[in-house]
Amino acid sequence: MNLKSDEISSLDKTFRSNLINSLLGPKSITLIGTISGSGISNLALFSQVFHVGANPPLLGVLFRPDSVPRHTLTNIRDTGCFTLQNVTRNYFRQAHQTSARYPEPVSEFEAVGLEEEYTEEFAAPFVKEASVKLALKKVEEIRIQSNDTVLIVGEIVRIIAPMQAIEKDGFIDPLKSGSIASAGLDAYYNVQALARLKYAKPDQK
Amino acid sequence: MNLKSDEISSLDKTFRSNLINSLLGPKSITLIGTISGSGISNLALFSQVFHVGANPPLLGVLFRPDSVPRHTLTNIRDTGCFTLQNVTRNYFRQAHQTSARYPEPVSEFEAVGLEEEYTEEFAAPFVKEASVKLALKKVEEIRIQSNDTVLIVGEIVRIIAPMQAIEKDGFIDPLKSGSIASAGLDAYYNVQALARLKYAKPDQK
Repeated sequence: MNLKSDEISSLDKTFRSNLINSLLGPKSITLIGTISGSGISNLALFSQVFHVGANPPLLGVLFRPDSVPRHTLTNIRDTGCFTLQNVTRNYFRQAHQTSARYPEPVSEFEAVGLEEEYTEEFAAPFVKEASVKLALKKVEEIRIQSNDTVLIVGEIVRIIAPMQAIEKDGFIDPLKSGSIASAGLDAYYNVQALARLKYAKPDQK
Repeated sequence: MNLKSDEISSLDKTFRSNLINSLLGPKSITLIGTISGSGISNLALFSQVFHVGANPPLLGVLFRPDSVPRHTLTNIRDTGCFTLQNVTRNYFRQAHQTSARYPEPVSEFEAVGLEEEYTEEFAAPFVKEASVKLALKKVEEIRIQSNDTVLIVGEIVRIIAPMQAIEKDGFIDPLKSGSIASAGLDAYYNVQALARLKYAKPDQK
């Protein structure tokens, strides 16, 4: 396949969506937990989450246009906080099912069978089944003009992770945390270690 | 491990960097090819690339603060274009090695032993060894205030991918394209299929 702009834009809509969404290969997949002003919890699956910085610890989450109700974004705007957790092979089917459009006031936690968990000082719900759990405060909201998407930058204010998955140098091993990858809109993958490589220097091969 | 903000900020710098960079589990890893105004090619490894939209086809790339020379960002600003390609298990060691700080005017292509390839109408170099290759034009540049990082949004103007890796519905199968995942700053992973799941609807389990 070798397609130029005009050929890409004339592709069948579903084909194009699957193609464009799978161009980056395996990618991270996470669950974002929020709560509405009236106390309804929400859980949603996101693959557009990325590292923004280590100090202060920041992550970015991209939200699609506001053409349909987006409870996660609304809740983050209303409460200023959210949780983010890994998806493991033990509950990726439930995680995927959170994408269904449940009518208000159904919580995705109850609908898909994942358990919500709270810490005393933080409003948003964690997923009890997750092994890596983060609490984040919204610190910035940016509109991307090109297609009216919204980027939320969150500061990590709590990290919960299993000690046995953390290497001496701070690296969380996904084989031990159970974190899986996704691709496209609906594919899920276990990972198999190839290697951890040394810090690259010019005089190495 | 259960750390709050003040405990996170007092961690050893390397430990914190490894920890924060590995929180999202397995993530996508890509090579970005650019060329300078004076014709020096550049190749750099990025894991902060994400899907922004399918129509128009857009990707986002996050760049760290401009405290050290960032040739990729400078070249994109100067020429308005870049290529992005997958990393496969066949050359992930060379891809990693592009992170070394080679002195000007060394091209990473030559330094690590990957071959550059050009199409007639596009200035930036592709990686010949890659199986999925994209040409992008810069359409937007956004500064993230929280930590002075820069987000470049690029529109995909060409897609090159092997037909045998593309499913009937447009999905590129990473097992067939050979695309791998990364985690943290230096770990690389093959993927193993778990499942492709159906579009989630409220009346399913």
